[in-house]
This record gives sequence, C-alpha cells and structure tokens, in this order.
Amino acid sequence: MSITINEIPVKRVDKSRLPEVDFDNLAFGSVFTDHMFRCTYREGRWQQAEVVPYGPLTLDPASKIFHYGQSVFEGMKAYRDSDGKAWLFRPEENQRRLNISASRMAIPELPDGLFMEGLKALLEVDRDWIPGQSGSSLYIRPFIFASGTGFHASPADAFTFIIACAPSGSYFSGKVSVKIEEAYSRAADGGTGFAKAGGNYAGQFYPTQLAARDGFQQVIWTDDHRHEYIEEAGAMNIFVRIGDTLMTAPTSDRILDGITRKSILQLAESEGIPVEVRKIRVAEVVEASKNGSLREMFGAGTAAVVSPISSFGYRDELFELPEPEDSYAAHFKKRITDIQYNRAEDPFGWRYPLG
Amino acid sequence: MSITINEIPVKRVDKSRLPEVDFDNLAFGSVFTDHMFRCTYREGRWQQAEVVPYGPLTLDPASKIFHYGQSVFEGMKAYRDSDGKAWLFRPEENQRRLNISASRMAIPELPDGLFMEGLKALLEVDRDWIPGQSGSSLYIRPFIFASGTGFHASPADAFTFIIACAPSGSYFSGKVSVKIEEAYSRAADGGTGFAKAGGNYAGQFYPTQLAARDGFQQVIWTDDHRHEYIEEAGAMNIFVRIGDTLMTAPTSDRILDGITRKSILQLAESEGIPVEVRKIRVAEVVEASKNGSLREMFGAGTAAVVSPISSFGYRDELFELPEPEDSYAAHFKKRITDIQYNRAEDPFGWRYPLG
Ligand SMILES: Cc1ncc(COP(=O)(O)O)c(C=O)c1O
Ligand SMILES: Cc1ncc(COP(=O)(O)O)c(C=O)c1O
Repeated sequence: MSITINEIPVKRVDKSRLPEVDFDNLAFGSVFTDHMFRCTYREGRWQQAEVVPYGPLTLDPASKIFHYGQSVFEGMKAYRDSDGKAWLFRPEENQRRLNISASRMAIPELPDGLFMEGLKALLEVDRDWIPGQSGSSLYIRPFIFASGTGFHASPADAFTFIIACAPSGSYFSGKVSVKIEEAYSRAADGGTGFAKAGGNYAGQFYPTQLAARDGFQQVIWTDDHRHEYIEEAGAMNIFVRIGDTLMTAPTSDRILDGITRKSILQLAESEGIPVEVRKIRVAEVVEASKNGSLREMFGAGTAAVVSPISSFGYRDELFELPEPEDSYAAHFKKRITDIQYNRAEDPFGWRYPLG
Repeated sequence: MSITINEIPVKRVDKSRLPEVDFDNLAFGSVFTDHMFRCTYREGRWQQAEVVPYGPLTLDPASKIFHYGQSVFEGMKAYRDSDGKAWLFRPEENQRRLNISASRMAIPELPDGLFMEGLKALLEVDRDWIPGQSGSSLYIRPFIFASGTGFHASPADAFTFIIACAPSGSYFSGKVSVKIEEAYSRAADGGTGFAKAGGNYAGQFYPTQLAARDGFQQVIWTDDHRHEYIEEAGAMNIFVRIGDTLMTAPTSDRILDGITRKSILQLAESEGIPVEVRKIRVAEVVEASKNGSLREMFGAGTAAVVSPISSFGYRDELFELPEPEDSYAAHFKKRITDIQYNRAEDPFGWRYPLG
C-alpha cells in the first residue's frame, strides 16, 4: 500500500507563540507548537495531507472516538545537537508500530510515506521549537482516531491522523518508586496490550491513582492470570539487573514492543553484557532483593528515556534498591542519549537527520 | 455527592430536522435529534448544565480522549406507548452503572440528580423524536469523555458529559450467527471489562471483522486464560438454554452487568423457570448441541433487546440451533418489550414515566 505524497501544503500561523515559551522550565507535553500535520481518511482512502496551525478540532458528538475509544498513537522525540542540527531516533520503528497498532484496532493503516513525509513537513515548519537545552527535546505525538459517526458499536468509516508536538522536559520529576500490582491488570492475552491503543492507557489511570496515594509514581503490571510475572509499566518497559545479568520480559500480546527496550538489548549484546529475555517472576525479584543480588531496576521508554527505580512496593513491603556505581541504567541512558543528541558514534544507524 | 440542579437552560434550534426523518426506515443510531444535553467538569467540579442544539464539539487536539481513550458511556431507550405517552426502562440502573464505569476510568462521578435531570430536560425538548412505530425507539447515549489536554499519560483535569439521542430501528438485521472466540479476548481479570469504557469496544472491532468474514454477526467472548468459558458478546450478555434450564455466566471483572440480563433473570425466577447463573463451559454447550439438549442461545442487551442466535461457530464447525415453539427468547422479548412499551403490567416498577 503505497501512495505518492504530493507536495504537502502548509498554512502558516500569522504569529508564532514561540517567544512566549520558557524553554528552561518545560513540563512534559503541555505546551504545543505552532502547527500540526493533518490527514483524514474517508470514502475508503487517506485524503490530501496538510500542515495547518495547531488549533481546535471540530467533531460530531457521535464521532466514534467519544464512544468506542477507537484510536492509536505513537510517541517519539526530536533532539537538537550542539551544532543546532536536529535528529530523530529510529522513526521507521514508530511508523511500523503505528500500523501494527492500527491494524489491531480496525483502523486503516497509513500508506508508505505518509508518516515520514508528514513528520518531515511538520518539523520543517516547527523546527525552531526543538529545544537546545540538555535533557529537553521536542516530544512528537502522531495519533489516529475515529472521526466517523454512529452509535452502532462497529468501526468508524472516517479517521483523522494528526501529528502534534510539544517541547518537553523530563517525564518524571524526582525518584521513581513503583508498585508491583496484584489486583488490577493492564492487558489480557489475545487483547490489545501490545498496541499503542488509547483505551489501554485510560484503564491504567485508576490503579495508578491508588498506587500514588501510597507514594508510588508508577505501577508495574504483572500477568493478569496469577500476577506472578513482571510485565511492564504504564509507559515504560522494565529491566531488572540481578548480579550482572540484565533481564527483561519477552514481548507478547500483552506487552508493548518498546523501541528503547530493543535498543538497550542491542547495545547490551554488542557490549557483551549478559542478557536474559525471559519471564521474570516477582518472587525471584523479591528474593534477589532480600539476598542482595538485585542491583537495579529501571524503566525504558521514549518519554521516560531510562528511569532508575529507587524502590518497589510489593504486598505492603517496600524494597529499596541500591545505587550501584557501575549502574546499567546510567550507562544505557548515556549511550542512548549520546546517540540521540549526536554526541557519539551511531553504530546501528539509529539517528535520522532532519534536513 | 449531591448538588442542586438549577433550572437547566435550553437553547432551542431555529428549525427542527424532524420532518426530514423517515421513521418507517430507521437504521440504528445514525440520525440524531435536534438537541443534546451538555455539562462540563473543570476546576474540580461539574459546571452549569444546559440543553443546546445538537452540533459539533470543539476540542483541542491534545484532549486526552484522542490519546488515552478516557471515556465511558451508557445505552438506554425511550419508548412510546399506543397512547403517545413516553417511558424509560430502569434509568436509575444506567445512572448507577455510569458512575461505576466512571470510577474505574478515573473520571469524576456525576452528582446525584445530574443524570436524571439532564435526561428529563433533553427528552422534554426532543420528545417528538421518540418513534411510535412498533420495534422502534429513541436510543439514548449518555457519555463522558476526557476533554482536558496534555501528552502525559495521566487522567485529564476536564471532562465533558453529553446526552445525545437517535431514533432507531433494530440493532441486528436478519439472523444472528455467532463465533465462539478462542484467539482474541475482550477483557482481563482486574481490567476494565465490567465498565462501559470506550476502549473495551474498539478492541473488539478487529476480531469481529475477522468473524464477519466467516459469516458471523458477533463474537462470543470466552475467558482470556484458557478460552474455556462463555462470557458475553460485543454488546449483549449471553443466555443458553439446555433442556428447560436457562443459564448465563455470572458477572465479574470481565463481564458487563447488563440491565436486560438482570431483568430476564428476575422475570425467569418469578415465573419458576429453572435458572442457573454459573460459569458455562464451551464444551458443555457443544456437547448439548450434539446430543440435542441445547434448545436455545440468545443475546440480551438494550440495543439488541433479546436476539435469538441461529447458529454458532466453534473451531471450524458450525452448530445450528433449533427454533423451539416455546422459545424463551421470544417469551422474554415479549415480556420485556410489553413492559417497555406499556402494554402490560409492570410488577417490578421498571417503567419510568417521562412527564
Ligand atoms: C505501555 C508502554 N510500554 C513501553 C513503552 C516504551 O516504548 P518506547 O521505548 O518505544 O517509547 C511505552 C511508551 O512508548 C508504552 O506506552
Ligand atoms: C459489553 C456489553 N455487554 C452487555 C450489554 C447489555 O447491557 P444492557 O442490557 O444493560 O444494555 C452491553 C450493552 O449495553 C454491553 O455493551
């Protein structure tokens, strides 16, 4: 499925909001750039795409997004290097995954080219919004939702694909303490957990609020059958280091195939770090914590980058994690961000230059 | 949590669209009435409600509904009797369930009164839209979605509650053949399956499309662990009749507590029909079909009313169902619609008069 992307027309804002933004104090994903990319699907095909001023969408109250949560999204970032050049990180992976998600959610896939051309067109126009401050980046949110209407519980016949951007600082502020969840679940076998589908996220909010009341920033999900194995967190895959072995759960129906996760695995393998991709029992992590062999846990994701976990709660007990000198988390965070910000060699060809 | 509902202001359309509607050929949920009820939540509370012309909503592209599927809904109907009087069916049950759903999805609950007062205010204005044709009714869709903005995966701080209506004919056209699903799942233990949350529905579309290619109208979901037990269908609870015993699965984390289901159970008990609410193994249904003791299967839901199932597919085999003379489905459909359309006594006080 390939279309020729015609020249993408651009409608520019009269006056940029850029001067109003305090780039030294950026929150995460709450200030949006001047423009957005937009393309709609109707009458069986994706229509002419365009870049337009960022602004309100007008939707019928019967649009299926409001009723049936038919939507998918991606999360990626643009990075500015010290020379002012801008880069993406493995964007084809996001393109691929968006289509995998779309297919599971009965949303028409994007034709080849539309995603990358849209991204480039938008980032050309909003280029100056990519922060230069270290630790900051331009968070990019491609998403597709059901704009077609009707109260019949069936797929919509019209969709809207938008890419919007927000210059952002870090996702977490401060230490990250997590709760290993045993009552609620994120995903079912044969469900939508592997897709970046809107509804997967809303379902996590309430259990995460409950965990937050007990002082946790995130929930670590376990399998819904017996809550025996560690799966992933709300917006990060999870790594565990026992001794010198780095471990993470295999991807499955229930776990998002994270790009940061797979990049860390590839780096670790290339560096000869012992890696095990296998189901991780909660019991063995607790045991390792008790006998001192649990050296680290960390989350990995585009938004959270690599986030060390300072402690985890399990059945009313809080387990503190050490802060090892030779931290894998710190190491991989540096290796990955060095590639992202063009501060180091890029042996795997992950960096993607933005014009 | 109770508020005094002030007089609800009404902004009327200049010209009704009612004369354009062909009430003799109504589809399901695709033509909308002149008005809608609307109330927004922000700054920690539900604001002044109003009835306004049905029309487009204006939303920021960063509204969390587009990204995280944070939404819940209800489905109910208004019925017109032969004297022209209008009725609802157990509306307090919908009100109660909407709040249960909202709570699971980290959406602020509606204060007492808002739901019922909103419903009444809207139906007073759009009263003439309630069809008089037998088999038709006014489908009513209350829904709440996240209108607050941000790319951080956390609950929104603003929500919109809307009630919209669509005069509707029957949900299914023709025979209903179902597929007993073994590969995909609808819900996880500890998940959101018991809530009328948007994302639960989008997740069903793709598996249902696959089933449709094989000639099925609906999927019957089984437990995600081992696909051993019958749970429910996309928008209906499922009943099975073996011999003269009526059976349905118990509600759970994974199954919606249907109002039609519980009404049928209550009717059956009051009539001395043997009822079993218990886990139903797929294997026993297949076995019963083979030995001739499987007499009926039917779906029950507000939209589908009582829908007899004509056949079910399981592992490449198609099992035809008989059409018994003393059909429970026909019996309960008649009993329930007789109450709904005010053609019979209402022993349980289910009918709710609309002014
Ligand atoms: C559920 C979930 N798991 C893991 C990740 C990490 O994936 P990635 O590294 O591709 O950002 C994300 C965020 O994107 C996510 O939403
Ligand atoms: C998943 C699901 N199950 C069952 C039902 C039936 O519930 P009710 O009888 O309350 O309409 C519905 C529809 O409302 C539903 O969406």
